[in-house]
Amino acid sequence: MNRPANDTFLRALLRQPTEYTPIWLMRQAGRYLPEYCATRARAGSFLRLCKSPSLCCEAALQPLARFPLDAAIVFSDILTLPDAMGLGLFFSENEGPRFERPLREEGAIRALAVPDPHDRLRYVMDAVAETRRSLAGSVPLIGFSGSPFTLACYMVEGGGGEFWHFKKMIYDRPDLAHRILSVNAQAVTRYLNAQIESGVEAVMLFDSWGGCLTEAAYREFSLAYLQRIVAGLAREKDGQRIPSIVFARGGGLWLERIAACGCDALGLDWTIDVGAARRRVGERVALQGNLDPAVLLASPEAIVRETRALLDAFGPADTGHVFNLGHGVSRLTPPEHVGVLVEAVHDYSRRLRGKNRARCGKA
Amino acid sequence: MNRPANDTFLRALLRQPTEYTPIWLMRQAGRYLPEYCATRARAGSFLRLCKSPSLCCEAALQPLARFPLDAAIVFSDILTLPDAMGLGLFFSENEGPRFERPLREEGAIRALAVPDPHDRLRYVMDAVAETRRSLAGSVPLIGFSGSPFTLACYMVEGGGGEFWHFKKMIYDRPDLAHRILSVNAQAVTRYLNAQIESGVEAVMLFDSWGGCLTEAAYREFSLAYLQRIVAGLAREKDGQRIPSIVFARGGGLWLERIAACGCDALGLDWTIDVGAARRRVGERVALQGNLDPAVLLASPEAIVRETRALLDAFGPADTGHVFNLGHGVSRLTPPEHVGVLVEAVHDYSRRLRGKNRARCGKA
Repeated sequence: MNRPANDTFLRALLRQPTEYTPIWLMRQAGRYLPEYCATRARAGSFLRLCKSPSLCCEAALQPLARFPLDAAIVFSDILTLPDAMGLGLFFSENEGPRFERPLREEGAIRALAVPDPHDRLRYVMDAVAETRRSLAGSVPLIGFSGSPFTLACYMVEGGGGEFWHFKKMIYDRPDLAHRILSVNAQAVTRYLNAQIESGVEAVMLFDSWGGCLTEAAYREFSLAYLQRIVAGLAREKDGQRIPSIVFARGGGLWLERIAACGCDALGLDWTIDVGAARRRVGERVALQGNLDPAVLLASPEAIVRETRALLDAFGPADTGHVFNLGHGVSRLTPPEHVGVLVEAVHDYSRRLRGKNRARCGKA
Repeated sequence: MNRPANDTFLRALLRQPTEYTPIWLMRQAGRYLPEYCATRARAGSFLRLCKSPSLCCEAALQPLARFPLDAAIVFSDILTLPDAMGLGLFFSENEGPRFERPLREEGAIRALAVPDPHDRLRYVMDAVAETRRSLAGSVPLIGFSGSPFTLACYMVEGGGGEFWHFKKMIYDRPDLAHRILSVNAQAVTRYLNAQIESGVEAVMLFDSWGGCLTEAAYREFSLAYLQRIVAGLAREKDGQRIPSIVFARGGGLWLERIAACGCDALGLDWTIDVGAARRRVGERVALQGNLDPAVLLASPEAIVRETRALLDAFGPADTGHVFNLGHGVSRLTPPEHVGVLVEAVHDYSRRLRGKNRARCGKA
C-alpha cells in the first residue's frame, strides 16, 4: 500500500516537517452530526452499529465528507474488546455501557483469556479494511484501543461510574488486578497489531481513566502496561512506520514519564498548556491536542481566537503538533463550528510557518 | 471564646509544631454512617436536613462520637448559597441537585445580588452556633463554601453534569461570566465571614470543578476570585487567627499559583504525591490531604500500609500537614475502616516525630 495523498498527520506524529498543523477530532464521527444519528438509527442500536462493518465505514467517513480533516479514525468502541473476552457488553438507554458478567470473582479473573482478534473481533477488522478502501488513499486511518487500566475499570465495575470496585482491588488484591491488566495488555497488543495488519496507519491508546489514580498506582497499574503494549506493537507495515499515540487524560502531572513509554505522540487533555507540555516533553514525542471541547459551543469568533492562542502557545515549529480537542466532540456542538475550527487551524498554522521562515531568513 | 482543648488541627494549618498529624475527612458526616442515614430519613429530605440547625448539629457530631477526629465541619451543602440568591434549589432522587431557575438570561445575571447571610442563610448560622456549643471546646469547627467558579458551574447549568453552559459562557460572554463570579465572590466572602462571626474556627473553600478549565481560564475565572475572597476574610476572631484552606481539586498542575492566593493551606486531591506537593509549595502553605478514598474500601492492612506510605511521602516534619482524603468519604466505606485510618494516622505520625527527634538529637 502507498502512503496516503495527505500524509501530514503521519509526518507530524513522526516530527517531520509539515506545511501546516494537521487536525482530526476525537469523536469526530459522533452525535453532533445529524447524518451520524441517522446511521445509528438505521443500525437500531449503538452496539449493532459497532458490529456492522459497512455502517462503521459509513460513520467514519461522514465527518470527512463535511470537513477537510487530516485523518480518519475507525468507528468502534473501546469496550468491544472486553465484549470479545466474554463479558457480554450491552448499552442501557440512560446508563451507558454495561457488562452482563462483571469481572469480580477470582475464578473468572484466572480464566480470563486473550481473544483472537481475527475471530471474535472480525467485525472490527472488516470495518478497518472497508474504511481503508473507502478512503481511497486520501488521508490516514487511525486504529485504537482502550488502555489496559481503562478497560479493567469498566470490566470490574460492570459499567461506568467511579470504578470503586477496581480501585478497591488495586489496594486489596493487587495480584488479581495485575492478572487482569496483564491479560488486557496482551489482548490490546494483539488487537492493535491485527488492526495494523488490516490497514490502519497509526494507532492510539485511550487511557481515559488513568488520571484517577495516585502517581504510584498510575506507574504500577497503568503506565507499566502501556509500555508493554507499545513495545509489542508492529512498528512498520509495508515499509511505512506506524506511529503510536497515547492519550493520557488527566496525566498532566506525569507527562515526562508517559512520554518515556516508547510512544511517538502524547495526546493531551485541555488542562495543560500546550506550550508548557512542549517544553517538558516536546523534544521526545509529538503532541496531540488540546482545545477545550467547550470552545466549539461558542461563537465562530471565539473559536478562531482560542485556536490561534493554542497554536501560538505551541510556538514556532513546523512539526510535532497534531491539533485535536482535549476530549471528544460534545454532542451539543453545531456541526458548522467544526468547519470553522478546521479552517482556522489550517490557515493560521500556515501563516505561522510563513512568519517563522521569514524570521529565520532575516536572522 | 477560648481555643479548643484539641487545637492540633489549627496549629498544623498555621505550621506550628504538633505532637501528631491531625486528621478529619471531607464528608465525614455522610451516607457511610447508618446514624447519618437515620437522621436524614428523620429530616425527610437532604434539603430539609440542611435547613434544620439541630439536625445539622446532630449530623456534624456523629463521626466525632465514633472516631477521635481532630476537627468537625459544619453540616451543610455548597448550594445553599445560590439557593439564598433565589435560584430555587431542589434535589431530585437520582439526578442530584437541581435549580428551578438556572442563570441563563442576561437580565437575570445582571439582577443577581449578594444575599445577607444573617437573613437568607440564618439556618446555616444557627447550625454553626449550635454545633460550636455542642462541641463544648473539644475540637475546632470548620466552616465552608463552594468557590465562585464551582458555584457558577451549577448555577448556570441548573444542576450537575459537564457544565457546558457555563463553559460556553466563558468563551462567548466572558463579561457575563465575570459578572456572576464577581457577585459570587462577594457573596462567598460575606457568607464565610458570617460563619466566622457565628463561631467557625477555620474556613475552607471547595473549588471542586476549577480543574476542568484550561490553565489560562483557571487563572482568570477561578483563581482570581479565590484571591479576592481570601483577601476579604476576617483573619482573626477574639484574638485567634482563623486559617483558610483552599481545596483545589484537579489543580495539581497549578499548585504554585494556588499556593500564592493568600490561603494558609492547600487541600490536595489524591493524584499528586504529597511529597512532591510539599517540595513545590510546602514552605508557603500547609497541605491537607490526600489519601485516595478508595483505600477506605480495602482491608485494614491495606489502609494502614497506604496511610504510612503517605505520611512517609510527606516526610519528616512536625507540622504543616493535615491528613484527609483527596475527596469525600465514599458511601461504600465500612465505618470501622475510618477508625482504622484515624488510629493509623495518629499512631504512625507520633512515631515519625519520635524518630525525627532521635535523629536530630544524634546529629
